[in-house]
Amino acid sequence: MMRTNVYPFTAIVGQEDMKLALILNVINPALGGVLIKGEKGTAKSTAVRALADLLPAMEGVKECRFHCNPQDSHHLCEACMEKSKKGTLVGQSVKMKVVELPVSATEDRVVGTLDIEHAIKCGEKKFEPGILAGANRNILYVDEINLLDDHVVDVLLDAAAMGINTVEREGISYSHPARFVLVGTMNPEEGDIRPQLLDRFGLSITVAGEHQAEQRVEVIKRRLAYEQDSEEFVSIYQKEQEELGQRIMQARQLLPQVVIDDTLLTLVANMAIKLEVDGHRADITVIKTALTLAAFDGRCSVTADDIKKAARLVLPHRMRRRPFEEGVLNWEILETLFQEQ
Amino acid sequence: MMRTNVYPFTAIVGQEDMKLALILNVINPALGGVLIKGEKGTAKSTAVRALADLLPAMEGVKECRFHCNPQDSHHLCEACMEKSKKGTLVGQSVKMKVVELPVSATEDRVVGTLDIEHAIKCGEKKFEPGILAGANRNILYVDEINLLDDHVVDVLLDAAAMGINTVEREGISYSHPARFVLVGTMNPEEGDIRPQLLDRFGLSITVAGEHQAEQRVEVIKRRLAYEQDSEEFVSIYQKEQEELGQRIMQARQLLPQVVIDDTLLTLVANMAIKLEVDGHRADITVIKTALTLAAFDGRCSVTADDIKKAARLVLPHRMRRRPFEEGVLNWEILETLFQEQ
Amino acid sequence: MMRTNVYPFTAIVGQEDMKLALILNVINPALGGVLIKGEKGTAKSTAVRALADLLPAMEGVKECRFHCNPQDSHHLCEACMEKSKKGTLVGQSVKMKVVELPVSATEDRVVGTLDIEHAIKCGEKKFEPGILAGANRNILYVDEINLLDDHVVDVLLDAAAMGINTVEREGISYSHPARFVLVGTMNPEEGDIRPQLLDRFGLSITVAGEHQAEQRVEVIKRRLAYEQDSEEFVSIYQKEQEELGQRIMQARQLLPQVVIDDTLLTLVANMAIKLEVDGHRADITVIKTALTLAAFDGRCSVTADDIKKAARLVLPHRMRRRPFEEGVLNWEILETLFQEQ
Amino acid sequence: MMRTNVYPFTAIVGQEDMKLALILNVINPALGGVLIKGEKGTAKSTAVRALADLLPAMEGVKECRFHCNPQDSHHLCEACMEKSKKGTLVGQSVKMKVVELPVSATEDRVVGTLDIEHAIKCGEKKFEPGILAGANRNILYVDEINLLDDHVVDVLLDAAAMGINTVEREGISYSHPARFVLVGTMNPEEGDIRPQLLDRFGLSITVAGEHQAEQRVEVIKRRLAYEQDSEEFVSIYQKEQEELGQRIMQARQLLPQVVIDDTLLTLVANMAIKLEVDGHRADITVIKTALTLAAFDGRCSVTADDIKKAARLVLPHRMRRRPFEEGVLNWEILETLFQEQ
Amino acid sequence: MMRTNVYPFTAIVGQEDMKLALILNVINPALGGVLIKGEKGTAKSTAVRALADLLPAMEGVKECRFHCNPQDSHHLCEACMEKSKKGTLVGQSVKMKVVELPVSATEDRVVGTLDIEHAIKCGEKKFEPGILAGANRNILYVDEINLLDDHVVDVLLDAAAMGINTVEREGISYSHPARFVLVGTMNPEEGDIRPQLLDRFGLSITVAGEHQAEQRVEVIKRRLAYEQDSEEFVSIYQKEQEELGQRIMQARQLLPQVVIDDTLLTLVANMAIKLEVDGHRADITVIKTALTLAAFDGRCSVTADDIKKAARLVLPHRMRRRPFEEGVLNWEILETLFQEQ
Amino acid sequence: MMRTNVYPFTAIVGQEDMKLALILNVINPALGGVLIKGEKGTAKSTAVRALADLLPAMEGVKECRFHCNPQDSHHLCEACMEKSKKGTLVGQSVKMKVVELPVSATEDRVVGTLDIEHAIKCGEKKFEPGILAGANRNILYVDEINLLDDHVVDVLLDAAAMGINTVEREGISYSHPARFVLVGTMNPEEGDIRPQLLDRFGLSITVAGEHQAEQRVEVIKRRLAYEQDSEEFVSIYQKEQEELGQRIMQARQLLPQVVIDDTLLTLVANMAIKLEVDGHRADITVIKTALTLAAFDGRCSVTADDIKKAARLVLPHRMRRRPFEEGVLNWEILETLFQEQ
Repeated sequence: MMRTNVYPFTAIVGQEDMKLALILNVINPALGGVLIKGEKGTAKSTAVRALADLLPAMEGVKECRFHCNPQDSHHLCEACMEKSKKGTLVGQSVKMKVVELPVSATEDRVVGTLDIEHAIKCGEKKFEPGILAGANRNILYVDEINLLDDHVVDVLLDAAAMGINTVEREGISYSHPARFVLVGTMNPEEGDIRPQLLDRFGLSITVAGEHQAEQRVEVIKRRLAYEQDSEEFVSIYQKEQEELGQRIMQARQLLPQVVIDDTLLTLVANMAIKLEVDGHRADITVIKTALTLAAFDGRCSVTADDIKKAARLVLPHRMRRRPFEEGVLNWEILETLFQEQ
Repeated sequence: MMRTNVYPFTAIVGQEDMKLALILNVINPALGGVLIKGEKGTAKSTAVRALADLLPAMEGVKECRFHCNPQDSHHLCEACMEKSKKGTLVGQSVKMKVVELPVSATEDRVVGTLDIEHAIKCGEKKFEPGILAGANRNILYVDEINLLDDHVVDVLLDAAAMGINTVEREGISYSHPARFVLVGTMNPEEGDIRPQLLDRFGLSITVAGEHQAEQRVEVIKRRLAYEQDSEEFVSIYQKEQEELGQRIMQARQLLPQVVIDDTLLTLVANMAIKLEVDGHRADITVIKTALTLAAFDGRCSVTADDIKKAARLVLPHRMRRRPFEEGVLNWEILETLFQEQ
Repeated sequence: MMRTNVYPFTAIVGQEDMKLALILNVINPALGGVLIKGEKGTAKSTAVRALADLLPAMEGVKECRFHCNPQDSHHLCEACMEKSKKGTLVGQSVKMKVVELPVSATEDRVVGTLDIEHAIKCGEKKFEPGILAGANRNILYVDEINLLDDHVVDVLLDAAAMGINTVEREGISYSHPARFVLVGTMNPEEGDIRPQLLDRFGLSITVAGEHQAEQRVEVIKRRLAYEQDSEEFVSIYQKEQEELGQRIMQARQLLPQVVIDDTLLTLVANMAIKLEVDGHRADITVIKTALTLAAFDGRCSVTADDIKKAARLVLPHRMRRRPFEEGVLNWEILETLFQEQ
Repeated sequence: MMRTNVYPFTAIVGQEDMKLALILNVINPALGGVLIKGEKGTAKSTAVRALADLLPAMEGVKECRFHCNPQDSHHLCEACMEKSKKGTLVGQSVKMKVVELPVSATEDRVVGTLDIEHAIKCGEKKFEPGILAGANRNILYVDEINLLDDHVVDVLLDAAAMGINTVEREGISYSHPARFVLVGTMNPEEGDIRPQLLDRFGLSITVAGEHQAEQRVEVIKRRLAYEQDSEEFVSIYQKEQEELGQRIMQARQLLPQVVIDDTLLTLVANMAIKLEVDGHRADITVIKTALTLAAFDGRCSVTADDIKKAARLVLPHRMRRRPFEEGVLNWEILETLFQEQ
Repeated sequence: MMRTNVYPFTAIVGQEDMKLALILNVINPALGGVLIKGEKGTAKSTAVRALADLLPAMEGVKECRFHCNPQDSHHLCEACMEKSKKGTLVGQSVKMKVVELPVSATEDRVVGTLDIEHAIKCGEKKFEPGILAGANRNILYVDEINLLDDHVVDVLLDAAAMGINTVEREGISYSHPARFVLVGTMNPEEGDIRPQLLDRFGLSITVAGEHQAEQRVEVIKRRLAYEQDSEEFVSIYQKEQEELGQRIMQARQLLPQVVIDDTLLTLVANMAIKLEVDGHRADITVIKTALTLAAFDGRCSVTADDIKKAARLVLPHRMRRRPFEEGVLNWEILETLFQEQ
Repeated sequence: MMRTNVYPFTAIVGQEDMKLALILNVINPALGGVLIKGEKGTAKSTAVRALADLLPAMEGVKECRFHCNPQDSHHLCEACMEKSKKGTLVGQSVKMKVVELPVSATEDRVVGTLDIEHAIKCGEKKFEPGILAGANRNILYVDEINLLDDHVVDVLLDAAAMGINTVEREGISYSHPARFVLVGTMNPEEGDIRPQLLDRFGLSITVAGEHQAEQRVEVIKRRLAYEQDSEEFVSIYQKEQEELGQRIMQARQLLPQVVIDDTLLTLVANMAIKLEVDGHRADITVIKTALTLAAFDGRCSVTADDIKKAARLVLPHRMRRRPFEEGVLNWEILETLFQEQ
């Protein structure tokens, strides 16, 4: 069945924070995903789909259900490992895609199922892959993540933390790589999210509709133009899209070479202490995000400004909060710290 | 089994807003459906059935479970696509109909089911269609939508947003087109509706019983006449019905040519900002509704008056509201805006 | 297994409203049933069974599970339609009966079930009829209807409104006529009833025990006499029973010829406006009840007094009410209206 | 497996009301059962079992699962009816017994089940009898009836009211006689009972432990004696037991001849009006109980004193009550009435 | 699998009430079990297991799943009865044991299950024994009995009261002896227990940790010694254990000969009246406990002191109490009574 | 599938209490596990995994699903016992590992399942091992133990207390050794834990993030270094790791020889009395912990300081507390006690 053309990422009006957070995660999946909070009708889902569409194809093992990376021998599935040993691993070009995890998904649907009967009768494991299988090396998108069942959240976070999905049933177990960019959205009016879950998201941003008439007219015009003739609309943004795609791929290659000096590390540590964030995950994620920002900017070393930008994306949802209150980030403390620098 | 004659749409006394909202959606299914709120005994269900009955037949693929449109190669089901390639697609005349989604419907009943065993044994997909299959290109009517199960609501909105219904089970998936006019009714006395769901309805209107004795007598007389001899009653409205049917079909063909100028677009954007509506869906839907109103009026360009009428159908249910309060539309703000114009 | 003789309808002491409401519905099933509210021990169930017993036999198709009426070609089941075309429809005399819907009935039990496996294997529909099948052309009695499961109530009202019961499962559907007189009872002390459900009942009356010693002694005496020798007791009321039965049958035949003039229609419309009833169902039911009262009285035109009597049976349960309050009918408003006449 | 000897009914110390209420119901099962309220440890269960043990054997059809009475052709089960027609009905002597309905019993367990598959394959009904089957012509004992599931209560009351248990499944139905003496117990500290259910019990009494040391010592002594050597203990009460058994059997035969005059009937009616009892079930049950008391006393006509005694057993639990209050019987009103006599 | 040596009963420091209550029940299972209330970490479970370990072996039928007593022909299971008739009953020495009923046990698990299919196909009952089967003639231990499911509690109490476990399913029933010493524990901080259930426990005691340093050091020392070398530790208490075992066995044989005079019976009755205990179960249990105390002391007649000791174990949990209050025993009343003696 | 190198235990910055509590349990599994309370992001899971990785391999029976210790004939599974008798027990070197019990685990998943059908058909037990099977002789790690299902908690504690996991189904039972170090974590913000469960944990500590910038920078640096090149990072700590591993193994061997004198025992008993701890489990665990601390320190006798350190790990979570309050340890009382010494 034919689908209409995807709305171009670069045609999205405004929403700069959301776009940046998504791009940074695609450059560095170790950042730990993005949580997008905000009012309805703000193109959250459109943006995620658009980003995946923008990226150049990557290499994946042919006929592999997990789209294993033939270059990364540390994260192959069992079948690919087998092939790799025999030297029969064949790669092909695959597109990054957005895998959706519906709010009503059951645990079985998410992790997949092991056919125990088959295992007993035929002596070989038969694994029916779930959503996490399809999510490997892709974007896993969970709309209204605050409405998700607690069990499913646990399973999701375990896989996200380990990069591996393990299914065990009656003594038989099966594992496959499950390294994905987790993107969740929530409408804060519809119920809160467990602090445990909040903390696992690397970045978090808040979106709202535009408040300038000019901007809104632009949003309307582009939408109507896209709905009328999507093919023509897409062609207009073709070049801009390709440039952004290239920039992201280059940042990926640059990232391992980016460095940060000790003064900045100490700055981050002091920041975390002053702000009384729980544990150490916050500071580490600020550093990683700053490294990725430098890479996206084509630079090899982190600046204080990268730290500042990173703090804005990493800290707000990690502030300790009282029940029924939003965590709030005290920017004055931060500003003072940066000036003391 | 024989059914009695359907009550004619044009014989419904009053209820002009409801009738207009239904007609606009039938002209332009992209408007996103209508939510009809109101007290009991106000002919909501009668009106929906009557409208479907009024429309001229459309063309549909013969023996296709989804009533695919043989002219629209972008939205064919798998079987029709196959036939289309072979050149064996045969069309026939089919009537638009009202498909009801009962409040007690389960997810399986709505989306259909995949016979996994069959798929494994015979190597081919076997899909038992659900309510959404029957709803393609038709009106999907959900009485008391506020009582619907949350899971079913999610499934419904996903299908409505994508125009596609996708069923996935154990790694096998099946998709079919599911483009329908969603009509929901609710009695506000019987519980509220999620804001998320509210926002997805394009238009929303409120109905009440007539408050003029003359009008009420007319309602009673027509009802009694219809109950006594439905055949004769229907024949009286025959001509009026055919005229309205023609007018709708002409508006459908005119719609793609209707235009709107930038002053009006800016007016709509300012309106949305002043009224503090969430996101951008509201302004886009006002514009689309205004375009459809112009088409229904036989005009090729939108007027400020079209915008005003559209706002009345699109905005009220999108006003931000506090818990347990109704969203209220501040008409004074609107009037001022139009006068400033 | 033998059952004892049914208590004669005409032997019931007092309870005139309840008896009248039941008779009117048997004359005109389109009135929409009766809801009987009241304290325990007031012979509600006895009265319903007694009325069915009183009626002369009607004609029904032989071996038809739905007791189709061979004279009414508009409402035949599939099998009877088939026979009707072949000219093999054979009628026989059948007794009207009371079909009970127990509070614990499941949806399957009420609507019947479709044997999908059979349909797939043998290519023909196999329908296991439910309670609604047996209820066609009979009285459907629901004791303590306020305790019924919501899903079952929905199914019941749908069938009552359409006069048809439709079962759909996995794309296969089966319909049969389901036109019945719905009689529900409730004890207001045991919980309330949804307004939606209340509104669907045509008439509603309230019963209480007798408050005169003489009357009570009569109740006791008749009951003891009946318990001691039911055969003899029944024979005493034989003639009275037959007369009432005849009167009902004659009213049925007279009904289509009864008329009402416009002054009275306007009176009813004004009444509904003054009393602020929701929607239009109330006025239409008052008119229909008045028509049936005239027919039961052997008259061909409705009088203002018929309207007054009808209002007493139709309006009280339709008055708008606040949570935890009973709807109350303001008789003064009514009396003023009738005097202004 | 051997069971120990049953504790003799006549050896129970005190508890006269409870013993009388049980005896009256065994004489006249149409009284509608007894509800025994009271504190724990008051030999409720012992008394019921003891009474059944005391009664002489009755005649029952050989091999009949419902213990049908070969003398009572009006209440035979299907199989016995068949045999009766063929003249092959063979009677045998059977003991009345106590059938227990455990609080955890499911509906299926109570009414029995129909084997639908068997019915379809073999064309004959196969009924697995439930607790009600065993209860026909016996005592049905429900300990802690206030903890029973609502569905089961409904089923129980239906059977009790009709004297018939009907099981219907997918269009097949099976009925068998189910005429039993219903004995329920409840501890008011453990939750209340629905008014609907309360009203269905013919008689109701309250028990408490003895408050005289002498009586208590007697209770202890008898219990210890019984526990030490039940055989010897039972033999002591042998004669007393037989005499009571005979008296009950004679009362059963006398009952149909007992009469009551109109003055007493009017007295009962006035009593019900003054006490504002709901409906008519209360007065009828007072009369029937008075008739049974006369029979137990060997008399052929009811006295005012019988009415008084009966009122004490029938009315208290039928007094209208406010939530969380016990119904209380105003004896002064009663005394005045009897003196006015 | 080897288990470590059981901790010796006589090595338990302090907790005299608990130890006495357990011993009395083992001597006289008719006392009705013990409820042990108290804080955590007080060796409740250790004491129960230790007592069972201490008792000399008893005789049981070989291969009988219920450990039937070949000497007690009144309480044999069906299979043993059969063997007994044929004279093929073979006894063997079996150890009394502690059967645990886990809080999560289902009704099926407790009572056992009947294989209906087998019964129908093969015409013979097939019973899968549950926990109650294993509990016959043993100690049934329920830790945290206040957390047990209500249905399971009902089943348990029925079996305890009758000494028989009966399973019925679809008209087939199976019974086996189920005479056990019921020992329950509860932590009052974790929720209360139904009064109905409380009353069924014969004795009830409360435990707390020791409050003397010397005692506590002794507890620690013995525990450490036991954990280090259980074999040696057990050998130290060998003789003391054997003596206690013998004393219990002799008390069992003496018990039927112990007598009590009427003055003491009257004393108990007056005690129950003054303390306003519900029903008669309390006085009877006090007497039985006093008889058992005398037997344990090697005496043939009960003394006032035995009554006093028994009252302390039997009455506290039977005092009437208000919601959320503990029943409290007014010892002053008791003391006065004994002095008046 | 390859996994990355485990983060070295000795590379964890700070968190001395947590590290000590884990080490003590690995030396002496009889201590009863550790409960780690604390804010998110504090490396709880990392520490547990790191410790297991650090330990030298132990000897286990080849092909045994429970990793039985061939040297410990008291705790062999059935199969190993069999082999041991035949002299065919073959040992091999196995690594201690961390077995995770997910919050969503069902009882079946935890204890394993018995294949009843197989048992009946083939006459031999077939046990599908659960999580507890894998946990024998290993660390059982339960993240967010306060969210665990109550039934699973019961099962877990039973196994932990007995060192044995027993599965019973329909009269068949299977047991296997289940001796594990239980490590639970909880975030007190996410709900409390049952006192019953709290008491079963031997030790309990609270963790928080570091509050010194220097320390935090060190945490960040090590984490980044580890993420960049785990192989190199691990090699840096190689020697430190081996030394700690050796020290633990030596402590294990020394432990049985460590002694404590009576003065210190009395000190502990007085401490428990003064602090009003429930039961005796607290003092015994303080002693055992002190013995283990001495062993870890290479000493053969316990000092007052060992007691003090042990009290800090054992007592805080055992203090009696009011609902919604934390148990608090009154250190002043403790200090006074030690000074009085």
